[in-house]
Amino acid sequence: MKQLIKNSGLALGLALSASATAQEPIQPIEPATNINQAQAELGKKLYFDPRLSKSGFISCNSCHNLSMGGTDNLTTSIGHNWQQGPINSPTVLNSSLNFVQFWDGRAKDLKAQAGGPIANPKEMAYSHDLAIEMLSSIPGYVDEFKATFGGEQMDIEQVTQAIAEFEKTLVTPNSRFDLWLKGDKNAITAQEQAGYKLFKESGCSACHNGPAVGGTMFQKMGLVKKYETANPAQGRFDVTGNEADRHSFKVPTLRNVELTYPYFHDGQAKTLAKAVEIMGRVQLGREFNQQEVADLVAFLKTLTGEQPKFALPILPASTERTPLPEPFEVSAAD
Amino acid sequence: MKQLIKNSGLALGLALSASATAQEPIQPIEPATNINQAQAELGKKLYFDPRLSKSGFISCNSCHNLSMGGTDNLTTSIGHNWQQGPINSPTVLNSSLNFVQFWDGRAKDLKAQAGGPIANPKEMAYSHDLAIEMLSSIPGYVDEFKATFGGEQMDIEQVTQAIAEFEKTLVTPNSRFDLWLKGDKNAITAQEQAGYKLFKESGCSACHNGPAVGGTMFQKMGLVKKYETANPAQGRFDVTGNEADRHSFKVPTLRNVELTYPYFHDGQAKTLAKAVEIMGRVQLGREFNQQEVADLVAFLKTLTGEQPKFALPILPASTERTPLPEPFEVSAAD
Repeated sequence: MKQLIKNSGLALGLALSASATAQEPIQPIEPATNINQAQAELGKKLYFDPRLSKSGFISCNSCHNLSMGGTDNLTTSIGHNWQQGPINSPTVLNSSLNFVQFWDGRAKDLKAQAGGPIANPKEMAYSHDLAIEMLSSIPGYVDEFKATFGGEQMDIEQVTQAIAEFEKTLVTPNSRFDLWLKGDKNAITAQEQAGYKLFKESGCSACHNGPAVGGTMFQKMGLVKKYETANPAQGRFDVTGNEADRHSFKVPTLRNVELTYPYFHDGQAKTLAKAVEIMGRVQLGREFNQQEVADLVAFLKTLTGEQPKFALPILPASTERTPLPEPFEVSAAD
Repeated sequence: MKQLIKNSGLALGLALSASATAQEPIQPIEPATNINQAQAELGKKLYFDPRLSKSGFISCNSCHNLSMGGTDNLTTSIGHNWQQGPINSPTVLNSSLNFVQFWDGRAKDLKAQAGGPIANPKEMAYSHDLAIEMLSSIPGYVDEFKATFGGEQMDIEQVTQAIAEFEKTLVTPNSRFDLWLKGDKNAITAQEQAGYKLFKESGCSACHNGPAVGGTMFQKMGLVKKYETANPAQGRFDVTGNEADRHSFKVPTLRNVELTYPYFHDGQAKTLAKAVEIMGRVQLGREFNQQEVADLVAFLKTLTGEQPKFALPILPASTERTPLPEPFEVSAAD
């Protein structure tokens, strides 16, 4: 039956669209399921808590801002003491669908990722031990960890597990493109459909595929033509030491790409049009003309889904035992 | 009748408590009324939008964090390029009840205050002109300003008006103390009542009064005994040039004081107990003993009200015309 539909090319309507969808390189984003709600609620607080940084000023949400597509919309991020980060902040939205985490894939999953920035001296500049000391000094957290995980002693595994569980909720279903995939043929325009057709035919979908339209593989940046950048990141090479992995990066998701500017690991493409032009040239060896760029951009904008909606969490107050934040090395006021 | 109740001291129950409340130096916080919802919704977005800063990283919520009692819980704030701020960030909660804004009262109301940090080179380091250029480049904002204010041209007056309207919603009613004021005699404990009695009798309420338990007057910091601090702020003197105003500051609200640590304009009191001890000494010429401090702190913690609850706003995306943030003076990636 599936074969018949595919071969016949008939428009058989909604009932059969699900079968047709299976042939597409992109699948719809599904709402998050099997979420441990208690962990996710705790993780939401931790995600917004700047006390997980040395300064008391930087939280996960600082660089993966859920008001702004799960990014900071900066070329590279601002870390502790206003240090310039080495790489563009990837979006946290739909990041549960990435096959590995970070641009170079050095973390196998969200839980492994979550501990990284907390202890990175260029990012939150704290330590896992201090994070636990801080959280253990706050009765509101102590109670919630105990209720969520049981046991008497909280640890960094619980912290990263809770943050990862919250992040699993940050999916963006019901984009116009997904409505179209699911059979609503009016959900996207003729131009947007033309862009999608070109996206597939020109080879974009060889790498940008799956529900997240990316996040399923590593790929060399500059596959066909060298990608010129001042950014020294070596990508996957830094993890494997394998020469073949030099400048190989995790293919980023294109979900909500309208919101996650600027683009690429170095953040050098400020607009979607620029990103499309460069991708054509360095990855596909192709110069997209103006109309093609416009069509591709129009398609990409259909990938913006429903943004996660939740109440800003209220954090439990520190106590006398809570380590004081240290935003400045030498404080003029001390 | 009122006189009779006051003199007789009879516990006449709920029906008459409202009259009794009128005799108290503190009145309950009432829910915000007469809010222009369209302005407040727009203002909420602006409040969370870091594009109102030069870096694209600092929003109103960075230093007046609504997850943390409307403050940053730092001694003094972190501004553009990690500059150390000159003074402790006052809470935005219930700030509509302040008779003037800023520690030195240099803004007459929330609207006048809101424009300050945006253009302050030590805070958000942007300018009003750039803010309007940025907002005008974003169709989502253009449409919302037009729907909210009418007219073709947005201006900084609309921006600050919207932020101020959102801030007016940030009141915290129904603290345990307010429930007690309204007649629920079990809402606070005997110790908390003892603390309140001492708060009135020792003279705290001479300055900390009204619904916000503060925010109704200026007062000299170090009224009875000199307040020792390395912080050079001169308070009201900087506005008036009047010698009598040196070290005179707006009396801060004590609402939610449990959440708004550290304390004083210099942020040097890390705990409520320390703040109470110092206030007794330098403002009242009195050494509170350990029990008195404990009672006062217990009372102060009853002033924590319901924190504002709302969905994290989703910000409209920038466009090609939007000025790029400039977080770093010289970017290594450029």
